[in-house]
Amino acid sequence: MMGEFDLIKRYFTPAAYPSGVLLGVGDDAAVLDTPPGYRLVAAVDTIVEGVHFPKSSSAYDIGWRALAVNLSDMAAMGAMPRWFTLSLCLPEANDPWLKEFARGLFDLAQAHQVQLVGGDTVKGPVNISIQILGLVENDGWLCRSGAQPGDVLFVSGVPGEAAGGLQVMLQQLELMPAHDVLQKHFLRPEPRVVLGRALRTLASAAMDVSDGVLTDLHKLCVASGYGADLHLECLPVSAELQAVFGTTQAEQLALNGGDDYELLFTVPRERLSQTEAAMAGTGVKCTPIGVMTRDMGVRCLRHGVVVPQTVQGYDHFR
Amino acid sequence: MMGEFDLIKRYFTPAAYPSGVLLGVGDDAAVLDTPPGYRLVAAVDTIVEGVHFPKSSSAYDIGWRALAVNLSDMAAMGAMPRWFTLSLCLPEANDPWLKEFARGLFDLAQAHQVQLVGGDTVKGPVNISIQILGLVENDGWLCRSGAQPGDVLFVSGVPGEAAGGLQVMLQQLELMPAHDVLQKHFLRPEPRVVLGRALRTLASAAMDVSDGVLTDLHKLCVASGYGADLHLECLPVSAELQAVFGTTQAEQLALNGGDDYELLFTVPRERLSQTEAAMAGTGVKCTPIGVMTRDMGVRCLRHGVVVPQTVQGYDHFR
Repeated sequence: MMGEFDLIKRYFTPAAYPSGVLLGVGDDAAVLDTPPGYRLVAAVDTIVEGVHFPKSSSAYDIGWRALAVNLSDMAAMGAMPRWFTLSLCLPEANDPWLKEFARGLFDLAQAHQVQLVGGDTVKGPVNISIQILGLVENDGWLCRSGAQPGDVLFVSGVPGEAAGGLQVMLQQLELMPAHDVLQKHFLRPEPRVVLGRALRTLASAAMDVSDGVLTDLHKLCVASGYGADLHLECLPVSAELQAVFGTTQAEQLALNGGDDYELLFTVPRERLSQTEAAMAGTGVKCTPIGVMTRDMGVRCLRHGVVVPQTVQGYDHFR
Repeated sequence: MMGEFDLIKRYFTPAAYPSGVLLGVGDDAAVLDTPPGYRLVAAVDTIVEGVHFPKSSSAYDIGWRALAVNLSDMAAMGAMPRWFTLSLCLPEANDPWLKEFARGLFDLAQAHQVQLVGGDTVKGPVNISIQILGLVENDGWLCRSGAQPGDVLFVSGVPGEAAGGLQVMLQQLELMPAHDVLQKHFLRPEPRVVLGRALRTLASAAMDVSDGVLTDLHKLCVASGYGADLHLECLPVSAELQAVFGTTQAEQLALNGGDDYELLFTVPRERLSQTEAAMAGTGVKCTPIGVMTRDMGVRCLRHGVVVPQTVQGYDHFR
């Protein structure tokens, strides 16, 4: 049977490291070179079977997703992801599973030029924790707290599709093309790193949408000390979501569904045209969905009329 | 019921940050300042209930231990621990448990001037993963691969006591003073950060002993490309371990017991006297237990006679 050391050697030890990695996988810690002029950006995100992904998920998708949710944190900071460590807790060392997991993980790692530099493997219930390290220029990064009244609120992509995809999986709906599109949004989120970099010096605040647009917008507002008006008629509409779930449910998923890993961000009006040009350059569709207000709280309006909403975003311990 | 956000705010958000932390807990990532002249050192260690600690462990001890095993990785590199992130996976948000866990965690954090800067909380089977970040001077750090034939092999402290302590807990032995000493070694390892710093420019190789002296020495030898002779009569003997388990079993625990988080390191002969002075300055007892050899493999000898040993160190997947 494959031991812990073989496992690490076989699946998680690269042939070579990029410059900046002075010591990689296999010692007590990694030694990394942070260039002058940059700050270090650090985050961790953990995914647990049955909570963040259904048991039926493929190993490839789990590997992809574990890294994607972390890259999304770098995107939200406007940072360049550089390195990551992996803490892998599994009930057994299953060769075919590990091979596919590593393939999903490294396919996404390679696409973002981010390097695994260490980690640990332990036996226990499935729990995959990735700690990501990135760099951002000294002169600024994105955070949640910079939004000002009057700033325009944007969301990237089409929120709700990932939550719809999860429903499709959990309800084991017969797979039709629309279902497939949604499911892929859930299983293989595309972290918006390029968009985050483009917004770094333009947006006043940013965060990634992991718990649902309303919940996360509420957090951004609290961090910034202001409120927001969200214009429901501006929310980007997913044709697939409407086809599978109907218009009303589609809107609820767009507002309260989690797992999108899109960016929610605010732009001062004087930088709008510059930002629109920058966004266009990334190829990621971004939609203005509201405006920051002086009054605290998040209001949803449809054609100017307030529509009461219950925030239903995800909280692990409620 | 306490939600995820209250939990983070109540237990894991400090009132203030030391310089170097530009953005801490509560955003998508932390932003950290790495001073010029230093490299970044990164490691992760995860502890799982029923694997790394018995279910009966107190929350305080679990908090302490989760950080201690990570500080130990910094010690093994000769690095200064600076920051950590915490991924906390728990089946429920239990207020008294969290309070004690945070107390154990922060008591040790404060002793080592290391700062929590981020993390995530998820619901699931108990799994506590800490990622630690430290700094080490550009001009060198300790790793496993630098040992040369003739270098003297040292171990800090008294290996085996932690494994003895775990036995005491698992067998629910009636608690006598000797048991208590051993149990404390298991529950509250004292990471050898000060010793690691003292050895940084003196030792040729170092690692921390987490899986047992023999297993970890074998790893150090493989990394260095040489072998080692271990002199059994030189192994430091724990009076408590002998009292509870007898001489033979005590030696087996010293060789194969894990969880000690002592340092295993090698010193070139020409730096021996300088190293001895440096070790004395740390107040940590270090014992020469063998010598590096040109031939690969680890040999155990008693008064010059080879004693066959089976490496029984911990492997999660064997």
